[in-house]
Amino acid sequence: MSRIPRIVILGAGYGGIVTAIRLQKVLNYNEADVTLVNKHDYHYITTDLHMPAAGTGDPEKARVNILKLIDEFKVDFVKSTAVQIRPHEKKVILEDGTLSYDYLVVGLGGEPETFGIPGLKEHAMNIRSINSVRFIREHIEYQFAKFKREPDRKDYLTFVVGGAGFTGIEFVGELADRVPELCKEFDVDPSLVKIYNIEAAPTALPGFDPELVEYGMKVLADKGVIFKIGTAIKECTPEGVLIAGDEFIKAATVVWTGGIRGNHMLDDAGFETMRGRVKVDAHLRSPQFENIFIVGDCSIVMNPEGKPYPPTAQIATQQGECCAHNLVAAIRGNPLKEFTFVNRGVVASLGRGEAIGVVGNRKFRGWIASVLKKLVDIRYLYIIGGIPLVLRKGRF
Amino acid sequence: MSRIPRIVILGAGYGGIVTAIRLQKVLNYNEADVTLVNKHDYHYITTDLHMPAAGTGDPEKARVNILKLIDEFKVDFVKSTAVQIRPHEKKVILEDGTLSYDYLVVGLGGEPETFGIPGLKEHAMNIRSINSVRFIREHIEYQFAKFKREPDRKDYLTFVVGGAGFTGIEFVGELADRVPELCKEFDVDPSLVKIYNIEAAPTALPGFDPELVEYGMKVLADKGVIFKIGTAIKECTPEGVLIAGDEFIKAATVVWTGGIRGNHMLDDAGFETMRGRVKVDAHLRSPQFENIFIVGDCSIVMNPEGKPYPPTAQIATQQGECCAHNLVAAIRGNPLKEFTFVNRGVVASLGRGEAIGVVGNRKFRGWIASVLKKLVDIRYLYIIGGIPLVLRKGRF
Repeated sequence: MSRIPRIVILGAGYGGIVTAIRLQKVLNYNEADVTLVNKHDYHYITTDLHMPAAGTGDPEKARVNILKLIDEFKVDFVKSTAVQIRPHEKKVILEDGTLSYDYLVVGLGGEPETFGIPGLKEHAMNIRSINSVRFIREHIEYQFAKFKREPDRKDYLTFVVGGAGFTGIEFVGELADRVPELCKEFDVDPSLVKIYNIEAAPTALPGFDPELVEYGMKVLADKGVIFKIGTAIKECTPEGVLIAGDEFIKAATVVWTGGIRGNHMLDDAGFETMRGRVKVDAHLRSPQFENIFIVGDCSIVMNPEGKPYPPTAQIATQQGECCAHNLVAAIRGNPLKEFTFVNRGVVASLGRGEAIGVVGNRKFRGWIASVLKKLVDIRYLYIIGGIPLVLRKGRF
Repeated sequence: MSRIPRIVILGAGYGGIVTAIRLQKVLNYNEADVTLVNKHDYHYITTDLHMPAAGTGDPEKARVNILKLIDEFKVDFVKSTAVQIRPHEKKVILEDGTLSYDYLVVGLGGEPETFGIPGLKEHAMNIRSINSVRFIREHIEYQFAKFKREPDRKDYLTFVVGGAGFTGIEFVGELADRVPELCKEFDVDPSLVKIYNIEAAPTALPGFDPELVEYGMKVLADKGVIFKIGTAIKECTPEGVLIAGDEFIKAATVVWTGGIRGNHMLDDAGFETMRGRVKVDAHLRSPQFENIFIVGDCSIVMNPEGKPYPPTAQIATQQGECCAHNLVAAIRGNPLKEFTFVNRGVVASLGRGEAIGVVGNRKFRGWIASVLKKLVDIRYLYIIGGIPLVLRKGRF
């Protein structure tokens, strides 16, 4: 190539933004032309969205302006929505233009997986963006206001959360904390409010330490959460959910956190996927197109036992670092490095002052775990934006 | 009477609460048995409701716990809703019981008058209670959240306020202040938001000084309010309003402030009314039943020109004082006094730091008028609850 190579990064989630930040550090002047494309002009901290969704945290704390993270002399930022990838033409179609690339990084994030359950796509809300969590927060508050006008409508005060994975558990924890505040604000008897957490799997937080899961469920049950574990949602309607055993739970609010699949654009573009996610090679590339790297929720990486790692912020961040390294190596003609996931520990928040976590071989619970959770968040802010970002967005 | 007379006060609005407070001051021990009945356990400051409705003020500031205002050793408080007055039996039917009285004070407040405009009763919201203004506030915020999910729905960002009387004008003033905050919070382009104030009468604030009205409308128009004066609403639907000239304004929010009528219970009980309001005698009594006093929005008092005074907090408060005096006089066999309304001035707020007012012969505008407005509010808090209430609920 005589001209400098063009790198396009789609999506400024964990994988995309870390790739961009790393590239701007490592690339030399005029070594490559990097363009980051994102729908919004901000990056958001997905692992924190359960708080603004419940109304216990400010959405502003969960997002960062992209122009505060990237150096515009080194990375171009385009605020637009990608609509199509054309791997054979090395082009990306945006809603308002086209970009050509030599190397593409797909960090488009996931979409809710509803497993074909009727009505879930149409009637359930999802915790997946700043807009969606502001919507959920307003929707919840509105139900309390509506209930005061129609006191027979107990379903306004019934909240169904489908899925007891990380997002589901963390969200019900926050919601259980928020309910007493809302009851006070709207003069509602707290005993009328019901929070259901419904999970088809035989346990909450599958794969997590069973002893900690038991502890966590007890903490949440004490806060009023009603668990229906090993219970599938069979259908979602505008009136509520039908669950296994043909019980119908009337609820004006259904939030679905039960699954993530890859972005539909990958299927549309002819990538071979499993639930929309591409099983990448050892260097995080598409097995079909070696100039396309895939990071975050759109990618699958297998663990040593041959099972996919769950899509988390932690793995996406590590992929971003590796992806940037490999892009630079590819441009310089150096050998690429293999991606290896290093589990730095997992912490699930259970609301105010309570959490459960595993770091290495050690288990944590209670306030220590909740401090750990904050440290994980702060560490991430530090990685992407240094101390200034920690001070601006950290929750202390 | 050998036993002590029983006084029942229906409603703890301006007229009712002032009657109760005055009675507990003036009556001697065991001179009468006073019962105050109210739907909620709080009194609210109706003249302030435009703020929490728009979201610019805390609803808590606009209400006061009734038990902080009355002395339970002197006045019994019953939290219940009156459903029927039986004047011939001297009984009041509550939703959960019955009360007998020797003297009744009807201070039930008004109901929205929709002048038979189709759909207004069903689809428009009203600024008339703490519950209703919390509902309006949540409804407005929800529209912004919904718009972010459906950006084609400009009607989510269109707000129609029917009526440019005091409530309408004060509400659009607050709403115009609130919109920029909401746009910032929800990342909405402020130019997409439309606030219409529609009034059938040939002027806003009919009866108010025309020069001040012109000034006020200019202030509000500069904040973005679109006035349609001399324009009747012909119909309200779930999609918006049809106005004179067959223009349809698509709007997900319609707030109706265009009129007040008396409580339906008066008509039901056989009182002679004009739009549900009873033209009381010189002593504030029903011309049909001399043991029934009527105060506030359910009563009509004529001005010296033979026209009804508009129903305001000011007149209701003065009626409460006179009513208490006459109840005591009636019990003691003293002559009753005639009610005379003393206009202490009128101030209309136009949002943050702006107002228009007339006190005596002097006109006020701008920040001086807005300070005056605050003084009016503080004066009322002082009347009902002394300095402690001013400190707790005053807006400084």
